[in-house]
Amino acid sequence: MTIDLETMGRQARAAAHRLAQLTTAEKDAILRAMAAGIRAATPALLAANAKDMAAGEEKGLTAAMLDRLRLDEKRIEAMAAGIDEVALLPDPVGQVMESWSRPNGIRIEQVRVPIGTIGIIYESRPNVTADAAVLCFKTGNATILRGGSEAIHSNLAIAEALQTAGAAAGLPDHAIQLVPSTDRESVGALARMDKWLDLIIPRGGKGLIEAVVSQARMPVIKHYDGICHLFVDAAADPDMAVALAVDSKTQKPGVCNAVETLLVHQAAAAKLLPPIAAALRAKGVEIRGCEATRTILTDTKPATDDDWRTEYLDLILSVKQVANLTEAVAHINEYGSHHSDAIVTADEAAAERFLREVDSACVFHNASTRFNDGGEFGFGAEIGISTDKLHARGPMALRELTSYQYRIRGTGQTKAPVVPENKA
Amino acid sequence: MTIDLETMGRQARAAAHRLAQLTTAEKDAILRAMAAGIRAATPALLAANAKDMAAGEEKGLTAAMLDRLRLDEKRIEAMAAGIDEVALLPDPVGQVMESWSRPNGIRIEQVRVPIGTIGIIYESRPNVTADAAVLCFKTGNATILRGGSEAIHSNLAIAEALQTAGAAAGLPDHAIQLVPSTDRESVGALARMDKWLDLIIPRGGKGLIEAVVSQARMPVIKHYDGICHLFVDAAADPDMAVALAVDSKTQKPGVCNAVETLLVHQAAAAKLLPPIAAALRAKGVEIRGCEATRTILTDTKPATDDDWRTEYLDLILSVKQVANLTEAVAHINEYGSHHSDAIVTADEAAAERFLREVDSACVFHNASTRFNDGGEFGFGAEIGISTDKLHARGPMALRELTSYQYRIRGTGQTKAPVVPENKA
Repeated sequence: MTIDLETMGRQARAAAHRLAQLTTAEKDAILRAMAAGIRAATPALLAANAKDMAAGEEKGLTAAMLDRLRLDEKRIEAMAAGIDEVALLPDPVGQVMESWSRPNGIRIEQVRVPIGTIGIIYESRPNVTADAAVLCFKTGNATILRGGSEAIHSNLAIAEALQTAGAAAGLPDHAIQLVPSTDRESVGALARMDKWLDLIIPRGGKGLIEAVVSQARMPVIKHYDGICHLFVDAAADPDMAVALAVDSKTQKPGVCNAVETLLVHQAAAAKLLPPIAAALRAKGVEIRGCEATRTILTDTKPATDDDWRTEYLDLILSVKQVANLTEAVAHINEYGSHHSDAIVTADEAAAERFLREVDSACVFHNASTRFNDGGEFGFGAEIGISTDKLHARGPMALRELTSYQYRIRGTGQTKAPVVPENKA
Repeated sequence: MTIDLETMGRQARAAAHRLAQLTTAEKDAILRAMAAGIRAATPALLAANAKDMAAGEEKGLTAAMLDRLRLDEKRIEAMAAGIDEVALLPDPVGQVMESWSRPNGIRIEQVRVPIGTIGIIYESRPNVTADAAVLCFKTGNATILRGGSEAIHSNLAIAEALQTAGAAAGLPDHAIQLVPSTDRESVGALARMDKWLDLIIPRGGKGLIEAVVSQARMPVIKHYDGICHLFVDAAADPDMAVALAVDSKTQKPGVCNAVETLLVHQAAAAKLLPPIAAALRAKGVEIRGCEATRTILTDTKPATDDDWRTEYLDLILSVKQVANLTEAVAHINEYGSHHSDAIVTADEAAAERFLREVDSACVFHNASTRFNDGGEFGFGAEIGISTDKLHARGPMALRELTSYQYRIRGTGQTKAPVVPENKA
């Protein structure tokens, strides 16, 4: 099957111009229709998903992968409910960010507008098809979705449900398109289509992100790994240090904002490492320590240099003793992934230095790294967490799916001074 | 000579961490010292520039190219004065963009921070060395500058003057680095250094920008061409239409925000095209018209489809008659470069539709396209005009050279609810 991505791109661009003109009320009505469409399509989605599950079992996918792939009535209802929630969120498009007048009388307005066209390249979980398409649509963007091969039948069924129900409610043609093939070439082809795609968001493993970054001609917003740190300062409250270590590491160990390395100030190590280690071990955490850590926690495996650079996504924690705040900050900036890093301390000056000097998207004082999340920030939805520094950093929600435009209103102002004719 | 770009990159990253900690007062003092350093180095700059000029003449550079390359006492003083002006501008770094609290008591602050490290790849004009380095420094960013071969001696002398005078005033080592070679490979090598460079800004011709875009692994902010339009609506005031056509086209024809195509509503064409054409021709403008235009302006060359896609940067204007506003908007979105487009009309509804539907960085109602400019916006300085939609769009000044960071302050909040021990 030849997929004409170029045609899909041209169609997306045309759809984007129409999407940009929809009112918030029109978009929200379409969203509610799409949510209803997903609910009505439950039997079709379950049937399509059964094909993917059968193929996945045949291919020998792990139990965890099969679970990510699985749709059931509860998950389909959650997908639909998620769309209804997006309909209730405020629309950033049209918001005046700033406005001012110039001495010559022109008035300048900086107004949020859609980005235009967005490519989403993702793996496994079929609900991303609905989540990503709907967040991009709410902000007036056209999407080209390219999911993984494991979920192709589920993705096609979800996209069709969104398109059919949306179209009946006024969704412009080609506003949401799914690439019906999952060959590797389509990733590169999309990444080179900077004429038609204004942005690509890859969601998946390092291999996928690397393939997109190395080939993309348009901006890419990505979330690489989360090598997050908790620094227990000399002035840390002991109970708080234990609570934050446990929460940041174990509340959900498989996610990007979970802590992978604990740094402990040498002045606090002897007192605080034993209770922290005991609490973590009670939760099943394996600890790997630096040499100084192992003189205190004697029954601990050694950590190698690789450990400081590893995102375990598992119940494993590397622990390092540092001489002071300066060494902690230097370690985080060198080995971390600039994602989420926290300090526990009662020393306000130390906290402020940490927040200012750690070069990460989210820096925390006396709070869990698990709060780097669009929902926890109150954004209501999240398309991902960016570890980039341009355009979007940290939790990326509706506002980060917009661009802006300057609208300038005058009364005939020219750059060259106007010379009255009789004096020219 | 082997240039170790990798080493320069590592040094830039280290410098960026130190730059991010400088106060505004410290940075401004260093800027004033650098301005004084440029003034004091005038004889050395003139001598270095003489070498470039001699080589340029030998290579047969055009008079225009030689003029861009030339430094004289006046231009050196302007360069120094420009640095003093940047010292007077407000520093966006540290500005709290937004802050709010969550029901659980955590307080979230979104704070402007430097981007980190920026590569600037540019051609010919040696003053870019100072301009770009200084704007990046004011915003706490380390720069790696890679200028064109024609200006290499001038660029090296300017960079040395900045570095020497800056260092004496506290400029961190390697905050401003110039690649001492101008071979083509260095462009690709810099573009692939996403570990060390957070952003690349290419300034120059299409070939240079294309080379950067196709190889870059990090974000690129660029300004491609400016195919800008003026649409004279049916309800345009005749005098204003003439004045804006003349200003947008002729006030400075060789720049990106000058108009290249005039669109005229068919209801206004017969009345307005003759006076507009007469005023433009009096300024030496050659007009190329569509068929309908040529029935009114009979002594006009025909415009081909290529004309609608051409950035003349010269006293040439293509003119097209359109049936209505819808056709004007469609033409601009299809053929334009999404840079600067204007409507002249007394019809407010038509103006608002134009501003909302034209997908360009700056859209104007009754004002010259020449106002798409950081200076005209009141930004005080400008590193370029972005035709991209991510991060920076339109005039790009100090604020656009920053990123942001979320600083979250709590009192021990965890994501998992805390269960009192005696109830656990």
